[in-house]
Amino acid sequence: MTDSKIRRSERLIDMTQYLLDHPHTLVSLTHFAQRYKSAKSSISEDLAIIKKTFKQRGTGILETIPGAAGGVRFIPEIPYEESKELVKALCERLSEQDRLLPGGYVYLSDLLGQPELLRQVGRIIASKYLGEKIDAVMTVATKGVPIAQAVSYYLNVPFVIVRRDSKITEGSTVSVNYVSGSSERIEKMELSKRSLKRGSRVLVVDDFMKGGGTVNGMKSLIEEFEAELVGITVFAESKFKGQRAIEDYTSLLYVEDVDTRTKTINVVPGNYFDEEK
Amino acid sequence: MTDSKIRRSERLIDMTQYLLDHPHTLVSLTHFAQRYKSAKSSISEDLAIIKKTFKQRGTGILETIPGAAGGVRFIPEIPYEESKELVKALCERLSEQDRLLPGGYVYLSDLLGQPELLRQVGRIIASKYLGEKIDAVMTVATKGVPIAQAVSYYLNVPFVIVRRDSKITEGSTVSVNYVSGSSERIEKMELSKRSLKRGSRVLVVDDFMKGGGTVNGMKSLIEEFEAELVGITVFAESKFKGQRAIEDYTSLLYVEDVDTRTKTINVVPGNYFDEEK
Repeated sequence: MTDSKIRRSERLIDMTQYLLDHPHTLVSLTHFAQRYKSAKSSISEDLAIIKKTFKQRGTGILETIPGAAGGVRFIPEIPYEESKELVKALCERLSEQDRLLPGGYVYLSDLLGQPELLRQVGRIIASKYLGEKIDAVMTVATKGVPIAQAVSYYLNVPFVIVRRDSKITEGSTVSVNYVSGSSERIEKMELSKRSLKRGSRVLVVDDFMKGGGTVNGMKSLIEEFEAELVGITVFAESKFKGQRAIEDYTSLLYVEDVDTRTKTINVVPGNYFDEEK
Repeated sequence: MTDSKIRRSERLIDMTQYLLDHPHTLVSLTHFAQRYKSAKSSISEDLAIIKKTFKQRGTGILETIPGAAGGVRFIPEIPYEESKELVKALCERLSEQDRLLPGGYVYLSDLLGQPELLRQVGRIIASKYLGEKIDAVMTVATKGVPIAQAVSYYLNVPFVIVRRDSKITEGSTVSVNYVSGSSERIEKMELSKRSLKRGSRVLVVDDFMKGGGTVNGMKSLIEEFEAELVGITVFAESKFKGQRAIEDYTSLLYVEDVDTRTKTINVVPGNYFDEEK
């Protein structure tokens, strides 16, 4: 290959790497031109190839912003069909009978510690909020954290962790009381005061939802911070007898039925897939 | 450009994306040949270009495994100089005086919720253990979780979360008692029984270490599981008067001095950088 072809190849590889590592970030053409000591016209051609490939392979959208202050922005996305396939595979894994715990709970911790699965879940949830302005992802300790982090990687915004127990390392906190759906008990949750700015647009995520009490607590906390709730997405929800504390949420998985006697769990895709896009 | 050049460009972009998304995973040439309906000889050429570019740009190592069962394996790495620059920038951020909390604690939660920073920290810590066989990353809830997840992304192994409070959703657990270094109290920590296999090789990570009591607790827990400790790396350690519970560990940052009276924090690079590589 000639020298210029080699340089194009190297640029394409490194630009791909850079864009994937900086989702939702405006990168100027000048940045790339300097990084590779190449003309902006060559960079433009490179980006056109990357844009086309990302689209064809379902990696995401490469937005082009024209003008002097312009550049490109990579928005990770997952094709609808691919997300459905992934969630169907998850339904099978969740239905494994040795996941059944006393009280009808479902063991999830192994899944929520797998990097490959978290990447997929993060990409699926982030895809739902591509068009929204989001300043922070919020979750509650401990099991929501991996999901919040996975989503925050793809949206490229920070995540904040609400806690049920106060910790000296959090500084001043704001707390709210909430009704835990499953036990009807009044509980308390708190968030470090400096972790969320007033007016922030917040996406709430969690691992599991029954009555929705915990998520509702986070909703109150968002109000206390004079912030704004953009949406709620949970990894899994379970069937709930009675009135849920919240109505408007998205779930990837729906635990339809748990039978402790016959040791069966039946899991189907959640309402994320209710309407075809 | 001719058709074949376009195809090479598209392959390079998509292969880069695929390899970055599957670190430490053996990918056969056949996999790529089928994915792009291309000859293995072309794929080999592509991979040689990617290997060279990854090396030049400090993205990592692309290992080539020859033979019928062979293929390539991407090992993420960070150049020593780059990691040092990143940690120096972190030292400055940690030294900000409004991070000082009552009792001489340092506020870290905002940093440990930033995806860009977590990616860097994950890459730096994972770089230290490239050559080691690791089966799981272990940490303790809650603040260690983001670091464990970040490291697990780059090593492509699951992470497990040790908890101080028992949760019904964890199933049967194994617990140990440990002496909390800072308070000299006896505390308890536990890990879900099914989360770690006997003989697993475990890397322990945590956000902050003072006396090392918590990390020492995880060490006992690893013994209880008849697993093996590979190493310990903490994001930050602070100066400790007296005998630490553990000796052999790595830190990215060292909080040398905290003065609550003058409100100053002095942070320098940790022992990760003690010996030049």
